[in-house]
Amino acid sequence: MTGERGADGETGTGGGAGTETTVDVHATRRGRAADRLREVDAEGLICFPSRNLRYLTGFTAEPDERHLFLVVPATDHPRDDPVLFVPALYGSQVRSETTVADVRTWADGDDPATAVRDLLAECGLREGRLLVDDTMWATFTQDLRAVAPDATWGLASEALAPLRARKDETELAAMRAAAAAADAAVDDLRALGADAVGMTEAELADRIVDRMEAHGGRGTAFEPIVGAGPNGAKPHHGHGDREIAAGEPVVCDFGTRVDGYPSDQTRTLVFGGDPPAAYAEVHEVVREAQAAAVDAVEPGVPAEAVDRAARAVVENAGYGDAFVHRTGHGVGLDVHEEPYIVAGNDRRLEPGMVFSVEPGIYLDGRFGCRIEDLVVVTEEGCERLNDTDRGWR
Amino acid sequence: MTGERGADGETGTGGGAGTETTVDVHATRRGRAADRLREVDAEGLICFPSRNLRYLTGFTAEPDERHLFLVVPATDHPRDDPVLFVPALYGSQVRSETTVADVRTWADGDDPATAVRDLLAECGLREGRLLVDDTMWATFTQDLRAVAPDATWGLASEALAPLRARKDETELAAMRAAAAAADAAVDDLRALGADAVGMTEAELADRIVDRMEAHGGRGTAFEPIVGAGPNGAKPHHGHGDREIAAGEPVVCDFGTRVDGYPSDQTRTLVFGGDPPAAYAEVHEVVREAQAAAVDAVEPGVPAEAVDRAARAVVENAGYGDAFVHRTGHGVGLDVHEEPYIVAGNDRRLEPGMVFSVEPGIYLDGRFGCRIEDLVVVTEEGCERLNDTDRGWR
Repeated sequence: MTGERGADGETGTGGGAGTETTVDVHATRRGRAADRLREVDAEGLICFPSRNLRYLTGFTAEPDERHLFLVVPATDHPRDDPVLFVPALYGSQVRSETTVADVRTWADGDDPATAVRDLLAECGLREGRLLVDDTMWATFTQDLRAVAPDATWGLASEALAPLRARKDETELAAMRAAAAAADAAVDDLRALGADAVGMTEAELADRIVDRMEAHGGRGTAFEPIVGAGPNGAKPHHGHGDREIAAGEPVVCDFGTRVDGYPSDQTRTLVFGGDPPAAYAEVHEVVREAQAAAVDAVEPGVPAEAVDRAARAVVENAGYGDAFVHRTGHGVGLDVHEEPYIVAGNDRRLEPGMVFSVEPGIYLDGRFGCRIEDLVVVTEEGCERLNDTDRGWR
Repeated sequence: MTGERGADGETGTGGGAGTETTVDVHATRRGRAADRLREVDAEGLICFPSRNLRYLTGFTAEPDERHLFLVVPATDHPRDDPVLFVPALYGSQVRSETTVADVRTWADGDDPATAVRDLLAECGLREGRLLVDDTMWATFTQDLRAVAPDATWGLASEALAPLRARKDETELAAMRAAAAAADAAVDDLRALGADAVGMTEAELADRIVDRMEAHGGRGTAFEPIVGAGPNGAKPHHGHGDREIAAGEPVVCDFGTRVDGYPSDQTRTLVFGGDPPAAYAEVHEVVREAQAAAVDAVEPGVPAEAVDRAARAVVENAGYGDAFVHRTGHGVGLDVHEEPYIVAGNDRRLEPGMVFSVEPGIYLDGRFGCRIEDLVVVTEEGCERLNDTDRGWR
């Protein structure tokens, strides 16, 4: 292939310069970003192919070894128009899919580092404090440092995370639809009952992907996790060739995307029989921990309080050491973004924030249990985006 | 979900500490990497979740916001054992899937930056020249610079690219199998004939994925490109809702993976009729350009000579301005890696290198044509990994 394209299965979702609504959304976001740069004492922002680039321009691409930058100078900077600097083979597409007026191209065989140096000089951005995408590759940040040796460097999230953390109605509509597709897939899975016994984890994962797409999702938000029996006790397990046995708990953690926005939920299910008695108790503890955490969500509450609410239930039940991860993470264009629901994060929750609430208990060599929903903070409390049955049966 | 897992559809492919062959492969590679660090005057190498990490440890993960580092000190460094520094939830898995003896974990809620500072101090790697993964995120490189302010920084590819560029027989076997799966999918596609007319690009892309998996591939190496008619003239086009018309050229660029190694090939096909006369001429030029470039491949030849061979044919036919990208790119664990087949790259080809040869001609608003095969450099010349029909019919 000649270049890499967005991995979330979307092509040309920018809407194009002809769609007035899209024009407004992305131009408005760029304007707000430029204002935020001033607030955090930065002179400019440099994005590469990232969720931030998509958020600010509508253009989706996966990073590759070619230089592709969006340069956004701070408001009232002497030269404050954003510039897109892209490989020639992306030129016409970027022009048709974004509303950024100033698009510069470079061809394979040119030296992009020199062109970037000239561009930053023209924008007056070879010194002062500059922010780069949090995910920008070292190959590009080292190039930028080389061409702007007097600049100091920070991360784009300083400016953009507060903007991206509060979802607007368009974003929430997409996330509700993605969550509904995943919920419906859970129901289909549960309906398998004893038919799931003997399937491998990988086969169940394929089934999940198929069902999410049947219910309107597009692709996967991440590789599904299907952890049967002891595999469920490895929170980082993906899925493998283990055959599902009757009565063993199976951690099923998956999500799909709608309009680029992901869902992310977990149910732990038992097929074709009853689980060990110890499991039923663990499941109930996790369910209570999850409910307690969701109950704790309201505007103004620090993120860590939600973690504490879940953890208190698990600790009181004597499983504190078996809850080896944070309670949740923000979800938006990125499946992991702010706010992180973790001890030490005193950030206050705000209406429009979306995050996962996913306590778990993992008993090494035996089984795991995790229950996860996405919630959105509302003016009074929160709304669960996932609402299918949380039981194991 | 609690963490992100390898995106290439593989889980736990490391083979585990119990597999002697795997033990040897990764430990051997770490030893060679440590030697190479000395050759490039670096004191140490720091990887995060990347293809390099997989190459050196067998452990596959996608980057996320959590600190996960492999630290490899140079040979004869005072403390020269590699260390894996991983989030607690990856701990048991990393220990079972890799042969790195020294695994340190940190828990959500700990401050990983402090732990990294202490680790680098213990390894004697807070100064001197250090290499980081080319794809390492800015959030981590900024952290590393903060905890090792006296170090200077380079890129891992300085040390690892020469090792990774020459594929061993295990790697080549996987790439041959991946190429064969994609070739067989092309044959299935071609057999559709007039049945493809009226299908959308997206439907054809789904069919391609399905056929590659039926022939032994696992998932996709990248989102398939299906560009019908004028969409084929956008080299960065993915696939959309355009319905394929009889007689219009359709650029089909796709690949799958076997054992983590990708294929990547392009055929431009015409379904249910004859293409415009201008297209048939263009197709022939591209085919000749591709053959000329493949003929130019042999050990000792500079990479740019292969590009020149293709470009000369296209320019002589009067389409020079319509060949808007380089002729190819290396392929290995990364779909894009060294050697790049581009003007200005005087790197000499070596046996075991694998790269794409993919000239194209793009006539804006009308159609595109690209023909791509992977080749491996042999002692005498090269071997094509793809060998299915290159015609449009």
